Amino acid sequence: MSTADGPVVGVDVGGTKILARTVDPRTGAAGKRVKVATPTDGPDAVLAATIETIKALDGYADATAVGVGLPGMVVGANTVTSCANIAGWDHPIAVGDEIASALGRPVVVANDVNCGAVAEHRLGAGRGCADMLAVFVGTGVGGGLILDNALVEGGRGLTGEIGHVTVVPDGRPCAYGRGCLEAYAGRAGMERQARELAAAGRPNRLVELAGSGAMKSRHFERAIEEGDEVAVELLAEAAWALALVIGNMATMLDLQRVVLGGGVVDKFGQTFLDQIVASPTFGGFGPDVCELHLAERLDDAGVVGAAMLASDQRG
Amino acid sequence: MSTADGPVVGVDVGGTKILARTVDPRTGAAGKRVKVATPTDGPDAVLAATIETIKALDGYADATAVGVGLPGMVVGANTVTSCANIAGWDHPIAVGDEIASALGRPVVVANDVNCGAVAEHRLGAGRGCADMLAVFVGTGVGGGLILDNALVEGGRGLTGEIGHVTVVPDGRPCAYGRGCLEAYAGRAGMERQARELAAAGRPNRLVELAGSGAMKSRHFERAIEEGDEVAVELLAEAAWALALVIGNMATMLDLQRVVLGGGVVDKFGQTFLDQIVASPTFGGFGPDVCELHLAERLDDAGVVGAAMLASDQRG
Repeated sequence: MSTADGPVVGVDVGGTKILARTVDPRTGAAGKRVKVATPTDGPDAVLAATIETIKALDGYADATAVGVGLPGMVVGANTVTSCANIAGWDHPIAVGDEIASALGRPVVVANDVNCGAVAEHRLGAGRGCADMLAVFVGTGVGGGLILDNALVEGGRGLTGEIGHVTVVPDGRPCAYGRGCLEAYAGRAGMERQARELAAAGRPNRLVELAGSGAMKSRHFERAIEEGDEVAVELLAEAAWALALVIGNMATMLDLQRVVLGGGVVDKFGQTFLDQIVASPTFGGFGPDVCELHLAERLDDAGVVGAAMLASDQRG
Repeated sequence: MSTADGPVVGVDVGGTKILARTVDPRTGAAGKRVKVATPTDGPDAVLAATIETIKALDGYADATAVGVGLPGMVVGANTVTSCANIAGWDHPIAVGDEIASALGRPVVVANDVNCGAVAEHRLGAGRGCADMLAVFVGTGVGGGLILDNALVEGGRGLTGEIGHVTVVPDGRPCAYGRGCLEAYAGRAGMERQARELAAAGRPNRLVELAGSGAMKSRHFERAIEEGDEVAVELLAEAAWALALVIGNMATMLDLQRVVLGGGVVDKFGQTFLDQIVASPTFGGFGPDVCELHLAERLDDAGVVGAAMLASDQRG
């Protein structure tokens, strides 16, 4: 086996856990999963734990490169400028250089959503499609853009930040302004709206089911099954907003396929995709421009995608 | 002078005229302009006239490649699938192959707006910026996208079609649906709106100045100088719509710079750019994400950009 064909390590550093596996980049086949809790005492501890997790992998000795995905903005496949979900990470860190010097192997760092997009493109619902966008709809809304079969990351690591695209100027509040896609289609935005409606005199099953805890996709599913008007309305608004942005991006970027995944999409499946396609707001040239596919929900897609990116960069 | 440094021919095939020049691709310096009227009896005649125009150029004998820009969708730098402004062009034609076989030189074909974007990137307001979007606001609104210093065209030649991005679902009618950017920011869309407002009881200077002829940028300029309420309102709506789409695209695509040109921008200049930046609708992460620059209005930018693309493709 030549070096270029050898196994690589993929790691997914999340807000609560660090996952690592060895991956055969030709097939995506992954070895045994190692999982540790993400330290909560700052980024140095997170990096140290990441390095130890990698070293503890069966097959690590043979691995010729390491790919690391994490929930931050990544510049130059190395420097993480911010990482909102990891406590104390508020300054740029050259994660790639630090891990490479500890391990003596080339390291590629990427945003975790981008890693998921790469996995869907190589092994999942994006196979065979040169230009595609992956959109993950969960608590928030993230995206990863593939053009001409390559991940596009941008000079500042912003590319794919579809959740922050404005759909309604002066609309629902969001972290960076008002009216972004995430405020309409992300679970946190829908929860906020459901609670505001309840407070304003429109009691709804969503708030009753979730109580004081976080509103989950299963709460939406149950409320909609029960015909709750607010839940039906919120999901329709999510489809409305996704249709507008997806159509616009497919038109602007000549995307033949958009792959949708994440908790909200997984819960409602093809029905939700059909609702998006049928929305009168489908942007740009309309739904004829692109096919919508459900993500294939690959096992540890972030780990596998990070490994694939590392494999691409091997000398 | 090696072949790779030699002059190339650039041609801009428009709805009314065909322009051709030899271009030094290292500097953009262009030779004497040859200009002929675009034949109106179908695409075969247009291609024949294009070939004759190229052959008639001083310096053609030394040219090692030819770039052709035209107002259509171009696939694979060769095939033009449609070309709305040229009479009878309603089917795909392998323009590149046809011209190459007549001239015995490699030919690259591209959309004319994309050629303009390439010229601005290499020689104009986009110099030194790896990721940029050029937006040309005239009768319609067109765009050209440069990522990592290369023009992005898409598998079907759609990329950059920013004029057809939807800004107001169920908004003003446009060619492909409703509410696209072009209907708000393009001169034709603004004219339609001005005439509809007049017909609905809001007489305005725009309609008075244009009479039954086409409404020009200078009519907008004069009406605004005179304080005409409708003209002021329409230009503000154009800025409103451009701000939304430009901010969204800059966020989604990590664009450091957006270069604006075309008749409407040329007429109102920096004042109009300031109006866009100040719009509360500036999409995505807002105006901090990207700089807005006025295009440098290069001489025959379409010709020069087409030549640059041809030069890139030489063996």
